[in-house]
Amino acid sequence: MVEWLGAPLEEPIFDELAIIGVGLIGSSLARAVRKRHGARRIVLSDHSSETLARAEALKLGDLATKDVAKAVEAADCVVLCAPVGATEKIGRAMRSALKPDAIVTDVGSVKGAVIATLAQLLPSYAHLVPAHPVAGTEQSGPDAGFAGLFVNRWCILTPPSGADEGAIQKVRALWEAVGSNVEVMSAEHHDLVLAITSHVPHLIAYNIVGTAADLEEVTQSEVIKFSAGGFRDFTRIAASDPTMWRDVFLHNKDAVLEMLGRFNEDLTALQRMIRREDSDGLFALFTRTRAIRLGIVAQGQETAAPDFGRPRADGNGQS
Amino acid sequence: MVEWLGAPLEEPIFDELAIIGVGLIGSSLARAVRKRHGARRIVLSDHSSETLARAEALKLGDLATKDVAKAVEAADCVVLCAPVGATEKIGRAMRSALKPDAIVTDVGSVKGAVIATLAQLLPSYAHLVPAHPVAGTEQSGPDAGFAGLFVNRWCILTPPSGADEGAIQKVRALWEAVGSNVEVMSAEHHDLVLAITSHVPHLIAYNIVGTAADLEEVTQSEVIKFSAGGFRDFTRIAASDPTMWRDVFLHNKDAVLEMLGRFNEDLTALQRMIRREDSDGLFALFTRTRAIRLGIVAQGQETAAPDFGRPRADGNGQS
Repeated sequence: MVEWLGAPLEEPIFDELAIIGVGLIGSSLARAVRKRHGARRIVLSDHSSETLARAEALKLGDLATKDVAKAVEAADCVVLCAPVGATEKIGRAMRSALKPDAIVTDVGSVKGAVIATLAQLLPSYAHLVPAHPVAGTEQSGPDAGFAGLFVNRWCILTPPSGADEGAIQKVRALWEAVGSNVEVMSAEHHDLVLAITSHVPHLIAYNIVGTAADLEEVTQSEVIKFSAGGFRDFTRIAASDPTMWRDVFLHNKDAVLEMLGRFNEDLTALQRMIRREDSDGLFALFTRTRAIRLGIVAQGQETAAPDFGRPRADGNGQS
Repeated sequence: MVEWLGAPLEEPIFDELAIIGVGLIGSSLARAVRKRHGARRIVLSDHSSETLARAEALKLGDLATKDVAKAVEAADCVVLCAPVGATEKIGRAMRSALKPDAIVTDVGSVKGAVIATLAQLLPSYAHLVPAHPVAGTEQSGPDAGFAGLFVNRWCILTPPSGADEGAIQKVRALWEAVGSNVEVMSAEHHDLVLAITSHVPHLIAYNIVGTAADLEEVTQSEVIKFSAGGFRDFTRIAASDPTMWRDVFLHNKDAVLEMLGRFNEDLTALQRMIRREDSDGLFALFTRTRAIRLGIVAQGQETAAPDFGRPRADGNGQS
């Protein structure tokens, strides 16, 4: 694991790093930064006493405090790792405690709304460099995190125009230290890209699981038993953290509705093909979609090994 | 693997088993039946010379022939493992070659249409017992198969009314021998259950991958790079065999359109919640869908281990 991340840095990127919100992402970041020696000191904060107690028990940082102002007061860099809906509250709690030239970044799945909120809250002597590591699992909380989560995953930075170049480089260095590839784009473009690669997929997964749960003709027990036919994968996605995802849809409303509109148009056309028994049209679509899959496997964003719902390490492979 | 399936049967279920279609399912069945000694002889047939040559090279059966009539002439049991759309052609090719009391079964994902086709084609001295093993991966062909595919998966039998009880018991014994749990239901109910647990999930996966491929504002390269946010899982499903899935949608049209209608109603309601920023409604839906996931994991239809797009066996676990 440590080898995979790389040897500890000779010179840490930050003297003190504050992580606000110690869930799956915050706790994984704390573990990875610690292993790479990316900061001399890591301070953790969370609104939940229970989560904070787990973070302390797991020794994820040097100090753990519920007091956001205290957590950030000596930090060179503050990383907001809470659901996007908590941004304003955290921003207000930390604004007057920030050091001069403190860098403020985050991990939110939505960037336009985060920038709109923080840009007007933060003091002018702080540097805002929003980020989004495109990584995760369907699990939540400090126990679900692990140091390798960001390895070979993309992290998108969306610095507002005029952002401090030195601050951008330090946030880039932070994500590269934990194994990510970094790409820079505008917040607006980010929100559109993620709407189609992440937000709408989650929305339709939540939706079909809800549809299945409400059927009268098919029992919940049957849905569960026969889930290996494809449904299973949707339930995994639909098991993601409800608070995080509620906030994503509320804060990226326009892009999500736009992409959902296109999805619906295409689904209507597909529905029409089925009704009219357009055999060639169906075959053409089902063939075309294979190409994107090949690209994802080729770029290491997923293994090509087939998935059949069981761990791949139990000897249950090709035979 | 062999241990996992269980020791070879003392008395084979069939003297000769014919498998027509040697793709993922047919080749997995051949491997599993061989390992359990479920038949004294296994005869294979496929319309593709290339597939048949691979089946011979892999030593999956005792005889491999393109001639369906020849393949079934001495079989006690014939298993159709071709796409559902090929049912009629295969039925016509084998009808006059079947032995008296031969059992004819299949593995199709659609049951009503298969019964409608075969019931009128087969001679009255053959016994039709349709089956559907709810198992698979996104891969295709004889090399993709493996003996453990059906272990702890459900196989649904849909015998027509008046089907021979002895024949039903033998088909049940076949699927139990390869590790499956067997359930019996009507073809009509099967087609409804699978429409929601398998067919519509595949349809919307194919659809969103198509939507993403057609965007002008977001490049294909971006879709691939940032697929770890959820999209990745849909591309896996949308990489399934195009011929098989075209046939499923054409042959289970009514149930698919019915379930798709409900999915659409629910999606419209969800879209409205986002537009109106119904925070509580979104949170309630996203919480409710977690329960079904827990049921699937509890019943062994999937592991609870988080999935983050890499094999779980490379040391990249919790740390």
